[in-house]
Amino acid sequence: MKDKPLILISNDDGYHAKGINSLIDMLRGMGDIIVCAPESARSGYSCAFSTTPLSLKHRRHEDCDGCSIDVWSCSGTPVDCLKMAYAKVCPRKADIVLSGINHGDNASTNAHYSGTVGVVIEGALKGIPSIAFSLCDYDDDADFSHMEPLVKQLVTKVLNEGLPEYVCLNVNVPKGGSDEVRVCRMARGHWRNEVETQHHPGNGKPLYWMCGYYQNDEPDAEDTDAWALAHGFTAITPLTADMTAKWEFKV
Amino acid sequence: MKDKPLILISNDDGYHAKGINSLIDMLRGMGDIIVCAPESARSGYSCAFSTTPLSLKHRRHEDCDGCSIDVWSCSGTPVDCLKMAYAKVCPRKADIVLSGINHGDNASTNAHYSGTVGVVIEGALKGIPSIAFSLCDYDDDADFSHMEPLVKQLVTKVLNEGLPEYVCLNVNVPKGGSDEVRVCRMARGHWRNEVETQHHPGNGKPLYWMCGYYQNDEPDAEDTDAWALAHGFTAITPLTADMTAKWEFKV
Repeated sequence: MKDKPLILISNDDGYHAKGINSLIDMLRGMGDIIVCAPESARSGYSCAFSTTPLSLKHRRHEDCDGCSIDVWSCSGTPVDCLKMAYAKVCPRKADIVLSGINHGDNASTNAHYSGTVGVVIEGALKGIPSIAFSLCDYDDDADFSHMEPLVKQLVTKVLNEGLPEYVCLNVNVPKGGSDEVRVCRMARGHWRNEVETQHHPGNGKPLYWMCGYYQNDEPDAEDTDAWALAHGFTAITPLTADMTAKWEFKV
Repeated sequence: MKDKPLILISNDDGYHAKGINSLIDMLRGMGDIIVCAPESARSGYSCAFSTTPLSLKHRRHEDCDGCSIDVWSCSGTPVDCLKMAYAKVCPRKADIVLSGINHGDNASTNAHYSGTVGVVIEGALKGIPSIAFSLCDYDDDADFSHMEPLVKQLVTKVLNEGLPEYVCLNVNVPKGGSDEVRVCRMARGHWRNEVETQHHPGNGKPLYWMCGYYQNDEPDAEDTDAWALAHGFTAITPLTADMTAKWEFKV
């Protein structure tokens, strides 16, 4: 590990969220920290980037134990934030990319929709070891403090050892924390009753909301992240940014 | 293959785009067609879904060779469109999901950002065999007609044989077409000079655009989609919606 690593952080809940600020606090003194996160909540943004012009604002600077903390916000998506920080803010290639801590779970196939996970896919595509952290608690005032030992342990380990090319980690922690960590695969499942209809209070026209509930298609599979979380374990799911299916297709 | 399969189509260029309308025309008479596509261009939306309320509009109905064509538009993302059609429009589970034909290439790691590919990831998560079609021509008036034999062949084959669970196809065709098809893996590469700065013409404040150029990190790898396209071949890249990395992580 470098004496003073450069830690690049983003999220999808916005730069003001308690989760990202808890993460910053946990890492004080471990390296120079650059945060570039959305101006407002950007949940469900996946790996989306913007085709419209974006703004970037410096929000605060702090010196802490010989390390600096700089917080920026960007008007774009989580992936825009990472691209922006990489191109316009970081003095050199970051040693690690962190995302979160997300308010709410990003396990199973829901990782596809997650802006939190989008950030670490982008980090992996840029060749930077990347970890996404999520806590299964959607409360704006959720308590993240119990995650500090896990966060420090994983960040130190990944700074020291790196990750294989194109691999990133998706870490999900049960509400209230857990004593045991499991390395998992992505659980398979799908959404039911996804679209809820309401009517506009003024003109009465139908409006549709993405809602519903997630059904785990393999609830008994003990090697999955969804199973681990349902049974009180922290789930670490290594994800790959190489989506090629290992399957021989004959035209 | 069923006598009259149900074909569900979306894209990220919008329901009015030439590419999706060319695709509809190629499939006339092959089954009942339901289109649900964005109201306007939604490039770069990946697997994003909306947390805001959406509208849905029926645009046209047509009867053709004993089959029906119904075109809907939705104010949301490409993935919203698929979820909306699945929940609110389709009379039963579709037999196949198609996306595109996209105006422009969606090969290599750029598949992560693509709304066209987002649609087929969503299709695969729903257990529906899904194919994304893209032509390496960004022109609004691009000529898609040479793709008709390939589209018909692949749609027929996948309707007959299906695809493995969680696997979808990402098909990219060189501008002007090609005589040979290659089954490929996703090329690895990354964006350079991603952020371009301009200044607001009124207030002079900086504005940032996602731009740059894509660098293929393995230009000589003949098994990749980027290589195939660069050498005039059509590239079929089977993608998996299971992002689990095949790598043993020890905590």
